[in-house]
Amino acid sequence: MGSSRLEQQLGFILETDQLKSVVRQTLLPGARRQENSAEHSWHLALMAILLAEHARDAGVDLLRVVKMALVHDLVEIDAGDTYIYDEAGQRDRAARETAAADRLFALLPSDQGAAFRALWEEYEAGETPEARFVEALDRLQPLLLNFHTQGAQWHTHGVTVGQVIARNRVMGEGAPALWAYAERLIHEAVESGYLREA
Amino acid sequence: MGSSRLEQQLGFILETDQLKSVVRQTLLPGARRQENSAEHSWHLALMAILLAEHARDAGVDLLRVVKMALVHDLVEIDAGDTYIYDEAGQRDRAARETAAADRLFALLPSDQGAAFRALWEEYEAGETPEARFVEALDRLQPLLLNFHTQGAQWHTHGVTVGQVIARNRVMGEGAPALWAYAERLIHEAVESGYLREA
Repeated sequence: MGSSRLEQQLGFILETDQLKSVVRQTLLPGARRQENSAEHSWHLALMAILLAEHARDAGVDLLRVVKMALVHDLVEIDAGDTYIYDEAGQRDRAARETAAADRLFALLPSDQGAAFRALWEEYEAGETPEARFVEALDRLQPLLLNFHTQGAQWHTHGVTVGQVIARNRVMGEGAPALWAYAERLIHEAVESGYLREA
Repeated sequence: MGSSRLEQQLGFILETDQLKSVVRQTLLPGARRQENSAEHSWHLALMAILLAEHARDAGVDLLRVVKMALVHDLVEIDAGDTYIYDEAGQRDRAARETAAADRLFALLPSDQGAAFRALWEEYEAGETPEARFVEALDRLQPLLLNFHTQGAQWHTHGVTVGQVIARNRVMGEGAPALWAYAERLIHEAVESGYLREA
């Protein structure tokens, strides 16, 4: 194995360090600071291991799920995190993220760049059981953190229960049991005044 | 599946959110702030996927490697991060981390608590090819970041090249090619004045 392949891999690994500086809207319950996309990706991968039994498809490939969770937000290094309730940002998100994928995955040896790109595209397409399960986790995690910060960011951004249901019900496709739980949590958030009805 | 199992799993997932507040000594090259153990764990898991071909044992079980990377620092939620060059801290690290494991993994359903504990113990024992590979990554990652912050934390803590070699040569057991690269990097760090000789 030539050292240039290893150097290319390590160059990419250094580049990905920047995901630790991409700030999300979610507040952390303990620290009361905004979460970054690297620690968010760690949390999703950990959730995938623990919650795999709740995937709609019991035969889900856990290694591919975990890889997808680790990789799914890398494009945010260039494109930034687009808040799920930011309708203007969502309109050009795909174009910004595709440009980021073009640049970032080209830093890797071509076989690995293609594999990472395929994982990211599979996630974005949301058609396989693995992609749908990761998407379900990606919706559940901020919901949990928002609930346990008494809806602070929902209040800040004026988010309503209708928006939360509309943007999160896709969870049911990847993990029905998690969506059933989430629906109860959303109901409780409204009851507790963490989330407004309109 | 009863909701109480899911609630136990989600309770653990919320508890692990605290790993995002455990601060390590490593400085991030871009942000110039200290790294936390959650984003560090994400970085190791990503490195595991990309660098698996450099593991000494080509037949290493990648899913177990990635799980171990995601879980290996969870005990720091109670025990904190112990700097690798902190000799006093290293002396009682095992006792502090075992107490943490006793509390944390008991929050999970018993089958999953036992599985996570086994992963963590396997990592700590450092005897399997998977544990040795994760350990190699866990040494390489801060070395890379220290090099790319011009040795700022090595200077702050008065770390010498002898200490760096003594604490990192274990890398060769899990991933000889990575240790060969690391040795060149350490040499270059001395040449560049990032790391002092004595």
